Amino acid sequence: MGIGDDGALINPSDNQQLVVASDTLVEDVHFPAAATGRQVATRALCVNLSDMAAMGAQPRWFTLALTLPEERANSAWLADFSAGIAEIAKQFDIALVGGDTTSGPLTVSITMLGEVPPAESLQRSGAAVGDSVFVTGYLGDGAAGLKSISSINNSCINSDRLLQRFYAPQPQIKTAIQLRGIASACIDISDGLVADLGHICQASAVAATVYTQQLPIAEDVRKLSPNNCIDWALFGGDDYQLCFTVSADKIDKLEQLIDGGELNACKIGTIQIAADGGCPVTVLDSNNSPIALNKQGYDHFG
Amino acid sequence: MGIGDDGALINPSDNQQLVVASDTLVEDVHFPAAATGRQVATRALCVNLSDMAAMGAQPRWFTLALTLPEERANSAWLADFSAGIAEIAKQFDIALVGGDTTSGPLTVSITMLGEVPPAESLQRSGAAVGDSVFVTGYLGDGAAGLKSISSINNSCINSDRLLQRFYAPQPQIKTAIQLRGIASACIDISDGLVADLGHICQASAVAATVYTQQLPIAEDVRKLSPNNCIDWALFGGDDYQLCFTVSADKIDKLEQLIDGGELNACKIGTIQIAADGGCPVTVLDSNNSPIALNKQGYDHFG
Repeated sequence: MGIGDDGALINPSDNQQLVVASDTLVEDVHFPAAATGRQVATRALCVNLSDMAAMGAQPRWFTLALTLPEERANSAWLADFSAGIAEIAKQFDIALVGGDTTSGPLTVSITMLGEVPPAESLQRSGAAVGDSVFVTGYLGDGAAGLKSISSINNSCINSDRLLQRFYAPQPQIKTAIQLRGIASACIDISDGLVADLGHICQASAVAATVYTQQLPIAEDVRKLSPNNCIDWALFGGDDYQLCFTVSADKIDKLEQLIDGGELNACKIGTIQIAADGGCPVTVLDSNNSPIALNKQGYDHFG
Repeated sequence: MGIGDDGALINPSDNQQLVVASDTLVEDVHFPAAATGRQVATRALCVNLSDMAAMGAQPRWFTLALTLPEERANSAWLADFSAGIAEIAKQFDIALVGGDTTSGPLTVSITMLGEVPPAESLQRSGAAVGDSVFVTGYLGDGAAGLKSISSINNSCINSDRLLQRFYAPQPQIKTAIQLRGIASACIDISDGLVADLGHICQASAVAATVYTQQLPIAEDVRKLSPNNCIDWALFGGDDYQLCFTVSADKIDKLEQLIDGGELNACKIGTIQIAADGGCPVTVLDSNNSPIALNKQGYDHFG
């Protein structure tokens, strides 16, 4: 049954829990007005897939509500947008099961449905004192990508790579599924490492320490701005990597995956007893001095 | 697990199919800018529940993506909006399982999840030649409600009833579940009877004849405009009643429910062999003369 009916019928697998997540992207808030239809589409779908990764879920189905101003409601823009949706849907083997198109300011709202075996979902609330803190991939790419949109001729950076990271951040689905049974807590980094690790700390009633020297920052991002790259890695949003915690008895299992090249992650800190008040995340610089955390959260685009 | 995590975990019932539907409401397109937070909320949720009714599904869970301009992002507006969501969610026993609030032009996008036993869902495609066409409740209330918003002092109408019909149309969930195993096809009337019955005809490859004399129109709507009320019933959207077809061998079962006061519906026409081209719906007036159908579709608000 297709999109023609009032709703779509789907058949969940036996003995699985469903995971539901919704995310809305608004022009000039989550992407610049200059973005192409394809860029808007891939970014919207990848951001939503990243929520599935954060939960350790296998994404299966999605619905798409597109609000479109008249000047974009032409076949060229829509073909470009649809191509982006089709590309990511094929890559992650997910099915568009329903949708809605309305007239208005450009907004893309996606609801993603995924499946996870009972009690194997990853959550924010499982971090415990003594756990190690890991992140996947590189941090700061999203913020650097945002910079490169406005200064695209800067020769020291690989703009194509960073633009791609901004418009089609790679949701860490495969890694997240590997982390079932290994990670004690997990979140995707959409608001920035400090803010999102802070969410894990709050949900788990713990604190965390992060070491700047251990932050995985890509070489081109370091070159783009040696002064800012640490800030981007700590506070820049839009990386859509995973931040997760692992207890001591599971570290071996994780390191086997990392050493075998099956999983790309590195340790950046540890979980500690929660202190009273203040930010639950302490960041230590290369001299082991705490750095001031005055940039909580992240404003996304603009 | 609550809204705090990246996604919500839900446990579908055993041996049920899931029904997913999304609908977005945009200010000045689907509701006037003067609407209160509560009115926006109840209308958005009821419209989405109506999609579940069209499918014969029992609604269970929903996600809500709210895009809000700065001038509304205050606690009074949000409290009013939340009260509307809570009221309808309680009335229909559905759970808000996820959401997202972003900054931008006022838009409410809801994804609703419901359950239906396998092979019992109502669809658009099952109407067959010889079936009878029924509708629930009154037609034209939605369009009359829209009128009454701009001419609220018109003394001959019950504006409260019509405003309520516009801002909190009653999704026909109970009726739809009763129609499982009885209706051969079903749709909810959001775009107007002729357009939506036309959707059934297209999906079922049949045609339909509707008799204006049999249209159920409320007494206050007839009084409000004896000239326009038939047009409102035929072409006015936003009624959110059900239009459904029933085969001859199921009519007795349906009429027992109607006669017993358990289900409010009346016959308005019949299903016929599809003709080539043109509108699949013929409307006959009180002289059995076909009336011109020049108002396909419906523009909602404004």
